[in-house]
Amino acid sequence: MEWIEMTSQCPIMRGVPADELLHLFENLQFQIKSYRKDEIMAIQGDEVKRLMILLEGSARGEMTDSEGRAVKIEDVAAPRPLAGAFLFGQENRYPVDVLANESVKVLIIYREEFLKLLGLNQTVMMNYLSLVSSKAQFLSRKIKFLTFKTIREKLANYLVSIGVRQNEVKEISASQKDLADLFGVARPSVARGLAELEKEGVIEIRNRRVKVLDMKALLALKS
Amino acid sequence: MEWIEMTSQCPIMRGVPADELLHLFENLQFQIKSYRKDEIMAIQGDEVKRLMILLEGSARGEMTDSEGRAVKIEDVAAPRPLAGAFLFGQENRYPVDVLANESVKVLIIYREEFLKLLGLNQTVMMNYLSLVSSKAQFLSRKIKFLTFKTIREKLANYLVSIGVRQNEVKEISASQKDLADLFGVARPSVARGLAELEKEGVIEIRNRRVKVLDMKALLALKS
Repeated sequence: MEWIEMTSQCPIMRGVPADELLHLFENLQFQIKSYRKDEIMAIQGDEVKRLMILLEGSARGEMTDSEGRAVKIEDVAAPRPLAGAFLFGQENRYPVDVLANESVKVLIIYREEFLKLLGLNQTVMMNYLSLVSSKAQFLSRKIKFLTFKTIREKLANYLVSIGVRQNEVKEISASQKDLADLFGVARPSVARGLAELEKEGVIEIRNRRVKVLDMKALLALKS
Repeated sequence: MEWIEMTSQCPIMRGVPADELLHLFENLQFQIKSYRKDEIMAIQGDEVKRLMILLEGSARGEMTDSEGRAVKIEDVAAPRPLAGAFLFGQENRYPVDVLANESVKVLIIYREEFLKLLGLNQTVMMNYLSLVSSKAQFLSRKIKFLTFKTIREKLANYLVSIGVRQNEVKEISASQKDLADLFGVARPSVARGLAELEKEGVIEIRNRRVKVLDMKALLALKS
């Protein structure tokens, strides 16, 4: 497929016919570049200076964990943009390393040129605003999920890990602040999680003394 | 202060002089609305159809948890926009309820009118792209923090939470599998984290008996 047809299928260009797009690109500087399988396309922390749109193949975003191992965060396939939401902003840096999963071809437009395109075509501007906004919304929902859905599970894991037993009172050395740090959430979330478990009759808690009333339920929550 | 001067200080309008902005607004539909303390300004899940810029006072974003309790997520004060990053996109809904913290005054511009403004002024467009991009980057870093807090930090938090003290031997009830579940990582990562802490002289560990040799270092790791 012609590069311009592939480009016109990218979400940012959606709704703009390929011939019209070709006309727009005649006034823009851009390049088309190829990468080999596993070649590095961008490095975490580097400034995002250009928009990359995958024309062929797919790429992966990877992070390195504390033990130096690569952890795959997401896959992006043609005809989608890479880190498209991070092109503007005060800290516009790649949040991950980007590597080619196979032979890939990308269309590269520098930020200044892309800004020209946004000014030239209202549809592209709307599409781009929609893409960045949707990304922010997706991330916002993910945070909600990470912080709101698992606190009870984490509390259950924690209580089992400190050796609580059915109907035995156990002193918890950790403050709610310690637990919040441990889980990576805000302190009130921990308080609510504990209150929920108490209300459901799973535990009884007074200050830092906890008694498990329903060990089965606690173990069921444990992930 | 005049509404137009307050508006010109909002990050979206930054760099556009108040008189120029007043001229731009002459061709736009907008309204200025007041809310009383604790009045609801937007409801979680409602479509974001208009940009709201705080001209006076501050508002809070709240979520309701499974038990129906309100949890404050963030505060926004004049002259900043409310949910400004969620105006476009496929699921452009308020991620939280928005309530007035005190008497507030807001400038309201519907999406279509705001699009006009973006088309009329390049500075406003750049500012807005920067705002939405920065929001996506902020959320992305927050997720990274929530999911990638290092295992050594989590281990330090955990050990402090179970009440270890300098040079005292403490039995850990949790197995490495329990800790892996608690942290949401694989068991070998826990083993490696513990081995690292031991190699660095922070702890001594034999089976489930741990002795802290360097409480200062352990506390320094604690987030």
